[in-house]
This record gives sequence, C-alpha cells and structure tokens, in this order.
Amino acid sequence: MPRISSVEVIDVRFPTSLNQDGSDAMNKDGDHSAAYVVLHTDDPGLSGFGFTFTIGRGNDLCVAAAVQRAQPLIGRDVDAICSDLGGIYRELQSDSQLRWLGPDKGVIHLALAAVMNAVWDLAARRAGVPLWRLLSEMSPEELVAAADLRYLSDVLTAEQAVALLAAQEPGRKERLREIEESGYPCYTTSAGWLGYSDEKLRRLSEEAVASGYKHVKLKVGANLADDVRRCGIAREVLGPDGHLMIDANQVWDVPQAIEWINALAEFDPLWIEEPTSPDDVLGHAAIRKAVAPIGVATGEHGMNRVLFKQLFQAEAIDYCQLDAARLGSVNEVLAVYLLAASFGVPVCPHAGGVGLCELVQHLSVFDYVAVSGSLEGRVTEYVDHLHEHFTEPCVIRDGAYVLPAAPGYSAEMHRQSLETYQFPEGTYWSSRAGEDPRP
Amino acid sequence: MPRISSVEVIDVRFPTSLNQDGSDAMNKDGDHSAAYVVLHTDDPGLSGFGFTFTIGRGNDLCVAAAVQRAQPLIGRDVDAICSDLGGIYRELQSDSQLRWLGPDKGVIHLALAAVMNAVWDLAARRAGVPLWRLLSEMSPEELVAAADLRYLSDVLTAEQAVALLAAQEPGRKERLREIEESGYPCYTTSAGWLGYSDEKLRRLSEEAVASGYKHVKLKVGANLADDVRRCGIAREVLGPDGHLMIDANQVWDVPQAIEWINALAEFDPLWIEEPTSPDDVLGHAAIRKAVAPIGVATGEHGMNRVLFKQLFQAEAIDYCQLDAARLGSVNEVLAVYLLAASFGVPVCPHAGGVGLCELVQHLSVFDYVAVSGSLEGRVTEYVDHLHEHFTEPCVIRDGAYVLPAAPGYSAEMHRQSLETYQFPEGTYWSSRAGEDPRP
Repeated sequence: MPRISSVEVIDVRFPTSLNQDGSDAMNKDGDHSAAYVVLHTDDPGLSGFGFTFTIGRGNDLCVAAAVQRAQPLIGRDVDAICSDLGGIYRELQSDSQLRWLGPDKGVIHLALAAVMNAVWDLAARRAGVPLWRLLSEMSPEELVAAADLRYLSDVLTAEQAVALLAAQEPGRKERLREIEESGYPCYTTSAGWLGYSDEKLRRLSEEAVASGYKHVKLKVGANLADDVRRCGIAREVLGPDGHLMIDANQVWDVPQAIEWINALAEFDPLWIEEPTSPDDVLGHAAIRKAVAPIGVATGEHGMNRVLFKQLFQAEAIDYCQLDAARLGSVNEVLAVYLLAASFGVPVCPHAGGVGLCELVQHLSVFDYVAVSGSLEGRVTEYVDHLHEHFTEPCVIRDGAYVLPAAPGYSAEMHRQSLETYQFPEGTYWSSRAGEDPRP
Repeated sequence: MPRISSVEVIDVRFPTSLNQDGSDAMNKDGDHSAAYVVLHTDDPGLSGFGFTFTIGRGNDLCVAAAVQRAQPLIGRDVDAICSDLGGIYRELQSDSQLRWLGPDKGVIHLALAAVMNAVWDLAARRAGVPLWRLLSEMSPEELVAAADLRYLSDVLTAEQAVALLAAQEPGRKERLREIEESGYPCYTTSAGWLGYSDEKLRRLSEEAVASGYKHVKLKVGANLADDVRRCGIAREVLGPDGHLMIDANQVWDVPQAIEWINALAEFDPLWIEEPTSPDDVLGHAAIRKAVAPIGVATGEHGMNRVLFKQLFQAEAIDYCQLDAARLGSVNEVLAVYLLAASFGVPVCPHAGGVGLCELVQHLSVFDYVAVSGSLEGRVTEYVDHLHEHFTEPCVIRDGAYVLPAAPGYSAEMHRQSLETYQFPEGTYWSSRAGEDPRP
C-alpha cells in the first residue's frame, strides 16, 4: 500500500519571449512556464506528475498555491485516492479559505489543476495504462462520480450524464480500434504567431500543408491591414478547401469584434477564436449572431464549468476549446465534455504552451471513444514547441495525434530540463542573472 | 515632488474562526484577513494605504501578488500618478504575464485591488480630502477617464458614461448637503451568522432594531428546518414592516435554490443573496424569475465588470453588491456604478470582513452625490467587527454611516494591530505556534 510521501512543486520557465514564439495581440512577450507538481510515493517506481501552464511572471504564485493545495495529500494511501478520484478532488476543492480567492478561478484554480492533474497521472500509472485508456474503461457511473457537476443540475443532472455515457457504451470498442489506427486529427498554430514575418508565415504554412495539415491558424487583432495581408497569404497557401482559423486573444470589445471579423470574412475563416473577454458569455452570443457563418470559438481562458454551462445555454459558441490545465483537472474537464455533448457542441481543446498537447491528446481520444462518439467538427490544437522537455512527448503523424502508449497522462518532464529552466535557480536563468530584465 | 520610495505588503489575519463571527453555509471557519499594502513616499507625512480581504489561507498568495503588482510604482512621482489614476491602473492591469492568471479575476485581481486601493487612498490624502469628496468633485470626464470601461462598450460607451454623470451634476451640491446631515443608510449582518444560537440571534436582532436599523440579514442554506425557525425569530423581532434579507453564500444549484427560497417566502424576504455560483449569470436570471417578488442580490464574489455587465444585461439581479476589495479598486468600481445606473439597478455594496465598511461608505456617498442620485432601494451593509484596528473607523449613527472627515480612503490600520496579527510572525500568532492547526 504505497502512500504519498512528499510533494515537490517546481517553477519552470522557458525563455520563449526571446524569439516571439507564442506571440499574439494580447500576449507579446510570454515566457512559457509551468507550475510543475511531482507526487512522490514511498514506492520509488511510482510517482504522479502534473502541471498548470502560465506565461511567466506569477508562475511562482501558482507554485505557492499548489504547495497549499497538495498539502492534504501527504501521507495518504495511493489506492484510496485512486479509488475515489471524485472524492479527493472535492476535498481539495472545498477548502473554504482558499475558495474565497476564487471560487474556482484564477491562481487557486490553476493550482488545483496542477495538483489534480498529477493525481490523475498517478492513477493511470498505478493502473499501468495511458490516461485515455483509464478513462475509456471506466463505467458511466464511475465517470460521473469523478466529474464535478456542482452548479450544473439545471442543465445536466448526474442521472442524465450517466444516460448520455451509457448511450455511447456499445460503440466504445469499435471507435477505439478506429482511432488507434487513424490517430486524432489536429491542426497547427505554429505558423501564425503575430511576431512572425510574412516570409516566415508563408514558409511555415506551406510546410504545414505539406505535412498533411488541413487547418492553419493565424493570430489577428493588432492591425487590420496586417491581418488582411496575412490572411491572404494563408488562404493562398491553403487553397479554397483548407481551413483557416483566426484568433484575436481577447483584444476586442463586442462592437469592434463584429466589425473587424466581418472585414476578414472574405478569407472564409472557419472560426474566430477569443474575440473578446473570455468572461463575456452574452458578448460571445452577440458576436456569433453577427458574424455567422463564421464560427465562434473560445475556452482557453474559460475559467470553470459554470462559464462553459452558460456559453452552451446562450448558444454563444460553435467550438469549445477547454484547457486541461486551467479547468480543475480531469474532474472538471469531464463535466465540460458532458455538457458539450449534451448541447451538441464539438470540443476542440486548446493546446500549445508547455505540455498542453501532451495532455489534451488523452482527452480528445476519450471524448471520441466514450462521450461524443464523433469526430465531426473536431480538431485538436497542436503547437510544435517545447515537447523535447517531456519524457513521453506527443507524436504527430499525417496531421493527427498518435495515441500515447505509456502509462500516465504524458505529463512528466526530464530532470535535466527542470534543472536548466527552474526559475530562478536553474542553470539557464542563474547564468543570465543581472542580464535579463525579466523578474 | 514626492516619489513612492517603497512598498510594504503585510499578511494580517484575525482569528475570527474562534467564535464563528462571519460563519455561513459555505464558509464555516474563516479567519478574516487582509493583504495590506502601504505605499511609502519620500515625504514622511504622506503614505497610501490599501488592502484586499480574504478569509485566511491564501492571504499569503495575495501578499506575494501585491508585491509584484506594486513593483512598477516604486520610484514614481506621486503627482504624476495622482493626475492620471486611470493610466496607472491600466499600466498595472495590463501586465500580460500576470493577466494570463486571470484575466481580471482571482488572486492577481485581488492583489490589483489592494495596490490600487492604496493608490486612491494616497491620492485623496495628497488632496487633503476624504475619498468620497475627491470623487464627488471630479468632473464627468475625469471620472470616465479613471473608470475601466474595457469590454463594456456594447452597453456603455465613454460618451454615454460622461452624459450619465453630466446629467447628475446640477444636483450634486444639494445631495451632498443632505447626505452630510443624514448619513448613508445601512443594515446590519452582525445578528445572523450561521454559527450563532437562536438566543444570540434574537438578542442581536432586538438590539439592532433598538439601535435604529430597519433591516436584518440572516445566513441560510445549511438546513431548511433551521432556516424556517431562524427566519421566524427574525421576522417576529422585525415586525411586519422591517426588512429581512437572507443570504445563502452560494450553496445551492439553481433548481435547489428556487425550491428552498420559495419555502422561506412566508417570511417575506426583501432579497435572497448569493443563491448560487457567483459566476452563473443565467442561473441568477432563472432564479429571479422563479422567486419574484423576492429580490435577487449578488456581487461580493462578482469577479469583475464583465460579470456585472452581464448580470445587468440578463436582468439577473435586483441589487448589486459590488465589493471594494475584489473589483480592481475604484477604477473598476466606477465602471460598475456607471453600468448599474444606466440599467437602473441599485448598488448596495458588500461590507464586513476586514475594513470593507471603511471603504464602502465612501463609495455609497459618491454614488448618491454623483452617479445614481438616488437612495431608493439602497442600503449599505454594515458589520460590527474589527473596526478597532483602523485609525479612522467608520461611525454609525441611527442606522446610517456618518460621512468620514479624514483625508483618504479610511484604509489605514494601527501599527499595533499589524504587529499583533501579522501572520505568522505577529505576537498573537507566534505565541500560538504549535497550538493552532491553522497553517
């Protein structure tokens, strides 16, 4: 009976701002970072790994919060935790003093995500299977017991959730065989960061199409003339049948969003992503009405399941881009997948950053096998950055995620990467002390 | 030309959980706390004081975040800051790396509130007037330049906001004379904490009525039979003409809220406060429809102006209970007052905790003088706790806040209180080290 013997939380920051990887209209100089959690057990062969993703300053706040969030886990029996993943989530989540700082949002929720992602990783390793398989083999009742359905019963009761999952049970095995063969379809954002030149945009778009991608996503929203020119380049490379997505990273008010998006309509975008404040359910609904048939997508800053419930209720989005490290781990992600399925909205998870691709591949496969049972309108983000720091990096083949085989949630990072990029003690940062303005 | 020479941020925690002051159905054991900011200048007679309010664990996260938030202020000219209070707010708020952890919510936003509250306190002290007077003497254009109107232009443009304030200008002086005489009406929550016995509830309610209060608020939501009994006691003491408010502190899902509130309708509550998740705009709208004529109130966990915009758009609330230490200081509070006035919803600010009463008295007076111009349906919370730690505690007379006279935002605490209750170094906490389970 292994127990959790200690919790290690590490502030890892990569200097991505140096070459504007990840730059967009709102976030010009992010250093992609992770508050990285390791749950050590007294079995030296068994640990759990998890993280939340940030873009630099404030990652230390998530680290400090994760230390507090994880405190109740120390000394606990691993089997007991793994046999009640809903119970341990609710226990950590319901600390009323920490709850006051949210509830269910901001630093304390990012920290809950980091810790509970590590718990789910531990559970899958304990079971000796990748997380997608752990989830895909749980019964409807077990899944619903793990899901955070609080505040959702006006649209989805536990009974309705069980029924929804039970209806998909007969096809699970067949869909699993199919997806193991084909992989889960993805698109790339690597081509379109705002800081890239036209030449780099064209070259990367051409490379993307050549490697089998049918979608390319561009950052927009800083300057309309630039956007028109860049969208023109991407559409030219994609041809009329490829899918162009555009992403404004929250820079617009609602009226400005409508005007700007309609000015780019000639390039036939599949979706506009994050047109305005991520909190503005009614604003997204108004934009969606005004820019149809262009779809509206949001979710990477979707703070919790209550926000997503309302996005669905208000018919505000065409694509749900939940984030595996912003929602409170698999427990809350499950709830959003269930809501999305019940409202018939496809989930196309946000990825990129640090390790988000590694996580979401598991979620997408599970969604297809056990929740939505559909690939229609679904494509998961992929960004070609920072995978080299993970012990089990995701693999892309022909524009699709290959199903990961190793036990766990693919969340473990190399010790060497941690030692180099730990902030501020790691060898990379300490060698630059005094030289770099970043705190 | 004084400059900001240093920033001090202190973790102050009061052991209020010991006697269940502040207990409710969600928060059973809060230690009322503040992340307390002092902006020192090189003029020894001039400092700025501000804080955000928390209930214990995690207050250290707000402290650490406030240190980061305040960093850009160090070395800055006080006059330059005070002459562009909108500019400095936007500068601090727009740190894109910290923004990622919200945006505009959770720990980083609480920290922004703490820091910018201190800036506003500094500005009022610099001007030698209480904050309510500083605000009441600003022109409509100056107020709108200070207000955070981002993401609001679909319902309120800057021009509309100026017009709204200009329309109230002619009556400012007369209303000021009137409110200086009468004070601003308040109600008390001190009687109805959930942990109090029936006897204590009855005695405190009787004392409240005897001291001139026309409103009493009870915590509900833990047990329906208890709620029926306690509401009966309060209604009996109040008589048929007094106002009973009930407060569930977010414990219900939407369907449960409707059922429970209707079961208490016989006691004729004026409002139900926080019936469900504070993020659930559409949920509040559904509850409001189903429990009318009982009013719906929320806002103490209202994370930002975008949430309030939607609460107004969806006609989800009858009373707006904004929080002076959760919204991003006066800059964002101004925006919510402007929205509320344009939608015709009365603002009844949340108070209690640590020093919230000291802050909101200024806001309520300003609202009456310069924004809404009305007292109809308006009553500001008052809780009789922890005022002794402030150098200029609020004063209540005949159920009304007496207008504060001292320069500033009434946010300064006694050094002795800080030395006693600083966590964990203060004399109170260090003398209990090892004795108390609170971390």
